[in-house]
Amino acid sequence: MTTREDCLALDARDPLGPLREEFVLPEGVIYLDGNSLGARPRPALQRAREVVEKEWGEGLIGSWNSAGWRALPERLGNRLARLIGAGEDEVVITDTTSINLFKVLVAALRVQADRDPSRKVIVTERSNFPTDIYMVEGLADMLQQGYSLRLVDAPEELPAAIGTDTAVALITQVNYKTGHLHDMAALTALAHECGALTIWDLCHSAGAVPVDLKGSGADYAIGCTYKYLNGGPGSPAFVWVAPHLRELVWQPLTGWWGHVRQFGMEARYEPAPGIGRYLCGTQPITSLAMVECGLEAFEKTDMQALREKSLALTDLFIERVRARCGEHPLTLVTPLEHARRGSHVSFEHPEGYAVIQALIDRGVIGDYREPRIMRFGFTPLYTGFTDVWDAAEALVDVLDSDAWRAERFMTRKQVT
Amino acid sequence: MTTREDCLALDARDPLGPLREEFVLPEGVIYLDGNSLGARPRPALQRAREVVEKEWGEGLIGSWNSAGWRALPERLGNRLARLIGAGEDEVVITDTTSINLFKVLVAALRVQADRDPSRKVIVTERSNFPTDIYMVEGLADMLQQGYSLRLVDAPEELPAAIGTDTAVALITQVNYKTGHLHDMAALTALAHECGALTIWDLCHSAGAVPVDLKGSGADYAIGCTYKYLNGGPGSPAFVWVAPHLRELVWQPLTGWWGHVRQFGMEARYEPAPGIGRYLCGTQPITSLAMVECGLEAFEKTDMQALREKSLALTDLFIERVRARCGEHPLTLVTPLEHARRGSHVSFEHPEGYAVIQALIDRGVIGDYREPRIMRFGFTPLYTGFTDVWDAAEALVDVLDSDAWRAERFMTRKQVT
Repeated sequence: MTTREDCLALDARDPLGPLREEFVLPEGVIYLDGNSLGARPRPALQRAREVVEKEWGEGLIGSWNSAGWRALPERLGNRLARLIGAGEDEVVITDTTSINLFKVLVAALRVQADRDPSRKVIVTERSNFPTDIYMVEGLADMLQQGYSLRLVDAPEELPAAIGTDTAVALITQVNYKTGHLHDMAALTALAHECGALTIWDLCHSAGAVPVDLKGSGADYAIGCTYKYLNGGPGSPAFVWVAPHLRELVWQPLTGWWGHVRQFGMEARYEPAPGIGRYLCGTQPITSLAMVECGLEAFEKTDMQALREKSLALTDLFIERVRARCGEHPLTLVTPLEHARRGSHVSFEHPEGYAVIQALIDRGVIGDYREPRIMRFGFTPLYTGFTDVWDAAEALVDVLDSDAWRAERFMTRKQVT
Repeated sequence: MTTREDCLALDARDPLGPLREEFVLPEGVIYLDGNSLGARPRPALQRAREVVEKEWGEGLIGSWNSAGWRALPERLGNRLARLIGAGEDEVVITDTTSINLFKVLVAALRVQADRDPSRKVIVTERSNFPTDIYMVEGLADMLQQGYSLRLVDAPEELPAAIGTDTAVALITQVNYKTGHLHDMAALTALAHECGALTIWDLCHSAGAVPVDLKGSGADYAIGCTYKYLNGGPGSPAFVWVAPHLRELVWQPLTGWWGHVRQFGMEARYEPAPGIGRYLCGTQPITSLAMVECGLEAFEKTDMQALREKSLALTDLFIERVRARCGEHPLTLVTPLEHARRGSHVSFEHPEGYAVIQALIDRGVIGDYREPRIMRFGFTPLYTGFTDVWDAAEALVDVLDSDAWRAERFMTRKQVT
């Protein structure tokens, strides 16, 4: 059985340990919510100051060229690409996950409409992050062309649900509630056998687990940069399209930034070649520029090293909670199998909301998701083994002391 | 005839003069491009620092509630509302102008499809800002339902072009090239007589001219916050919908932030009542928060005072250029009539690009728009009468000295 001394020793010899210094975290806080909003990279404050004071304040309009604003979506996309198994000039950082999902969803449906217009079903998990489901509903409602959602109740039901009527399988690689990790290559192959296209939502996997879009044969991918990628609150999202699909159709949000001649001021839309056509309107430069600070931290390590530590951290947390909280009504909902586990661990508890609040009061920040799920995110860039030990002990203390009962009737205010 | 001493006197007694101190501008620069990217309000740097250092770095995920991130789109929308004649809780600041146009365009077409499905024409100006035209093209291309664009070549042709086949008149209130100001109330009344709906793009009018959306009976409006509103590079845009139209249909980009219970994590989309349903995905908080600094400056004056000074500035510039540059091939394309003029002045010159570059070399920043148009934006919050005098003299110097000839063969790099 691991001891706290073992954890201190693990931290002392952890080759990733020094990366903690790349981030600023408040004193006395164990932050296990990087899967909702990543911590602040140390250079982000200086980067924001540069953009606001120098690039905006002094460079003014000239900064579109002199400070490289115009090239930011592509340049940062290239820095992100290696983390998700994408190639050079295949990713842009822009807009939001929801908007990017709309773009690729319409594109995929149009590709399918040309191939086999009878395919009208979009398959996804009922427990997928709600915005993914909502965006499909909004699109189907707008098009009125008979598109419908097929929601499966468990990850293992996905293969049977993808069939010859399926236009698109929309799969979030790591489930935001359970932490279940899907096999991208296997599901993509299965979808392709049925003639379906795949859209992968990487919100909880980019920067959390190794992702191999090209190796898996994936068709489309989207995701955010403000969780494991530490881009800052609401920082713009990313979009990737397999090169052979990219130019088959227009994505529908055809703004000026996606035009082949962005400053030609022409009266007809003509999409840029390449992933540039997935750009639309003017981007929030200050928020966008800080994404780079999050990506820089990843360049000091690699996803395999991060994955090994992530699994060690989640293993340790599961082991400690099971060993210490056995008498409490906790149910692990995250897969034990490594190949099926992302980088967060979720337990159900009948009073999960109150327990999380009591933990936050003790400086251990996890979060709560309806219904009854307590989530704990483990981010190997800045979380250590002793943090995990202490977080588990704090949970023991909250549960044993019934400290959570005082929190039961507080207003529920949570965010993704 | 005005003299430079008159300008100094006008500046000295200008009641808006002290507002210049609310902004930071580089030494030696006369900035006449606030219609492309507004200058930096002094408090913006401190606001960015607060968001990055305190709200993100220390508050972490809790800042969604404790720092009020969740309420930012509505709260800032309410601060903007009075500048555009909108009511309380009728405006949200979110996404980009292009994306917001897509939302209201689909909504308007759906309202019309319920009323009279034969209306398939979207009327706009050929010289409208390209992204507005492109977004219509992308939507028509996606829907494949027979929607088409009718592009008029001159503003006075708009009334005759709006007819019983028209679904939507999409009008940018102040033309980005010419500075022509449309009569919102008259065109809206005319459109309504024909059964058409109106979408007003306020990119070059919000904060530049008094706008009265409700008084004009307008149906939908969108616009950016980074030009005359000084929100920062690429700061999020705004959207307004007339209350009686707001809940008739879903806008199509149905992300989590527009759900009636944003944190309910439900598996069915249900739009929020009110303008909140025009929200979609997670917003770039740092860029969004700085919009407030731009709006604060407007609360120290009012749009009537700004309009009076704007007209005095543009009158003076036109007078000076005409008096001093009569021998050069300059053509004023901005209306002389006050009621038809926005807050920028454009001249055509056969070598407009080179002339603008030579002016920028002299510290007078205007911009160039294809073909041949030199634009000069006048922002009464931080532009004085002596600035206008000196800018006109710099133009005289560039033209008389042929300084622009050296710039002729430079690469053309411009941005909106």
